[in-house]
Amino acid sequence: MNSRISLLTSFMPEDADAALIVSAENTRYFTDFPCSDGYLLITREQAYFLVDSRYAEAAEKEAHSCQVVAYRKLSDELKNIILKNDVRTILLEGSAFTLNRAETIEEMVRPFGARCIKDASLDRIISRLRIVKTADEVGKIRKAQRITEESLSETLKLIKEGVSERDLALELEYKMRKKGADGISFDLIALTGKKTSMPHGVPGYETVKNGDFILFDIGATYEGYHSDMTRTYVFGKADEQQKRVYNTVLQAQLNGIRAVADGVCCGDVDKAARDHIDQAGYEGLFGHSTGHGVGLEIHEAPSVSPHSDFMLRSGMVITVEPGIYIPDTYGVRIEDMVVVTNDGCINLATLPKELTEL
Amino acid sequence: MNSRISLLTSFMPEDADAALIVSAENTRYFTDFPCSDGYLLITREQAYFLVDSRYAEAAEKEAHSCQVVAYRKLSDELKNIILKNDVRTILLEGSAFTLNRAETIEEMVRPFGARCIKDASLDRIISRLRIVKTADEVGKIRKAQRITEESLSETLKLIKEGVSERDLALELEYKMRKKGADGISFDLIALTGKKTSMPHGVPGYETVKNGDFILFDIGATYEGYHSDMTRTYVFGKADEQQKRVYNTVLQAQLNGIRAVADGVCCGDVDKAARDHIDQAGYEGLFGHSTGHGVGLEIHEAPSVSPHSDFMLRSGMVITVEPGIYIPDTYGVRIEDMVVVTNDGCINLATLPKELTEL
Repeated sequence: MNSRISLLTSFMPEDADAALIVSAENTRYFTDFPCSDGYLLITREQAYFLVDSRYAEAAEKEAHSCQVVAYRKLSDELKNIILKNDVRTILLEGSAFTLNRAETIEEMVRPFGARCIKDASLDRIISRLRIVKTADEVGKIRKAQRITEESLSETLKLIKEGVSERDLALELEYKMRKKGADGISFDLIALTGKKTSMPHGVPGYETVKNGDFILFDIGATYEGYHSDMTRTYVFGKADEQQKRVYNTVLQAQLNGIRAVADGVCCGDVDKAARDHIDQAGYEGLFGHSTGHGVGLEIHEAPSVSPHSDFMLRSGMVITVEPGIYIPDTYGVRIEDMVVVTNDGCINLATLPKELTEL
Repeated sequence: MNSRISLLTSFMPEDADAALIVSAENTRYFTDFPCSDGYLLITREQAYFLVDSRYAEAAEKEAHSCQVVAYRKLSDELKNIILKNDVRTILLEGSAFTLNRAETIEEMVRPFGARCIKDASLDRIISRLRIVKTADEVGKIRKAQRITEESLSETLKLIKEGVSERDLALELEYKMRKKGADGISFDLIALTGKKTSMPHGVPGYETVKNGDFILFDIGATYEGYHSDMTRTYVFGKADEQQKRVYNTVLQAQLNGIRAVADGVCCGDVDKAARDHIDQAGYEGLFGHSTGHGVGLEIHEAPSVSPHSDFMLRSGMVITVEPGIYIPDTYGVRIEDMVVVTNDGCINLATLPKELTEL
């Protein structure tokens, strides 16, 4: 067992003899081995990683924290472990098991006297463990961020009138992968003109036009860890209203970042950013939360949302990403990822944020 | 209601008053509207598509078969529908609901006297509906296949000594997306040399070398529909053993395709391909099934596996993809997608299959 697995067993509810984890993120978190199709069964004595023949050889080499079991028939191996460790109750990962998959496992373990607990308690424990990042984890997030920034810098040079949102998103992804990213953190967002007013817009065949805002919300993954960044540019000359909207968002974002520190409530970070936007006369045009945690998933705890009394702690990695969205006109969002420290935070993003006319 | 939704209601078990569908594939199948985050609630009288503000406008334009309900609070809208239609039991999509999500829905509907049925019965009904494709669906699969073939043909020209598997996979994906694919059907497989012996190998930094087999298992998606194709080439001159392995796989694949027709059992198609490989002296080196259905998912019913007595019917789309995998040496797989017809099948793949030395 490694320390993560030990911690998990120490937090497991008393009525659970074992935990069964199947999501790619969480099996990777506990074993350090990337596998989209394994069963990590953690009893109070021993962690077992059950994988089929495709993964057996690699798992044995790389997953040191647990006993790797190559199964032909999953139910046979579950039986052995249940009987050997006298497992009566198994906590299932409620965010990952579908109803059908849970039913299959229940049918497998029932003959051996074990039953499954199918609630969200395991997810809550794991979320609390994952929320504080180690230096190694921050290093991977930082690497993903470097790849993202280099790819964006190169893509900016390709922007000219007539280039489509879709092409920009595709070029970005191609560059990220060429630079060694595992993949993208989410479907990359590249929006132009009016479409920037939609926080969840999808890149289409719309093309860059003079005077447009161009918004990129992008991220790469590296060894499973995500990055997340938003930059908004003007193609051509910014008019006065664009400058005012942009600089309001920028100041709100700087205020949000300045509020971050160990011991601060998430709601206060949100408020620091949101108040500036509201006071500048854009109340109601910042319709989402100020940020979220980032790690093995692109959105994880904590949520940096209004009125949240969840307290930030050193080592958490969050985004700070306020925006102003004027319907049918345009929108601006600026987003960095920061690591919370005792007296503030370290910004993982290094690309400039002053209003840039391309 | 469209005919798909009507059919679903007619197959719903008697004790179910409604079905709740959330997977992107199945909501799309029934509404023709792509949405990764909607709730399709089908009662015996009416289909409701509950979406949040991000999707409301587009859904109202495009999802004609159902009443689009833009929700602020999902529970409020569920309440209205439950009370209006006197819904007591809701069949959940067991392959798509996680335990946690199912629990959330149960808590929402319980106060209004409704309970959820959490088994695989809805999945089985939908799988049976989706298994036979319409001409329109085949058209989309064919379009995805065209994109795949054009992309592969162009990528073949880039192959030279020193190009990595990863680069080949990335170029293929880039070309597919440039040609209008929604995305890729699965993580594209490009393998060289010894790695071709692994049916589930992952492209890495290994590079093309003279005399290597190069295996591509690839597919694009178009309007939600998948394509799937495998081709294996030799870089340089094939030796006698390579020729023998390749031509054995090719003949097995041709035999499999020749066996396909309405009324034929899947197991007999598998046997037609497998027998040739076994009889040529490669018994035990073809370790997977001969094929699978393709549609809104890359793997769907039917499974073309040994001894399956599932009967093929006109309009089903399946792959035929035998292979020979010699451990630590190399592997060959050849795969086409075909549409089952009354007296045979139509091959959706058009790229040549004779042994090609690049």
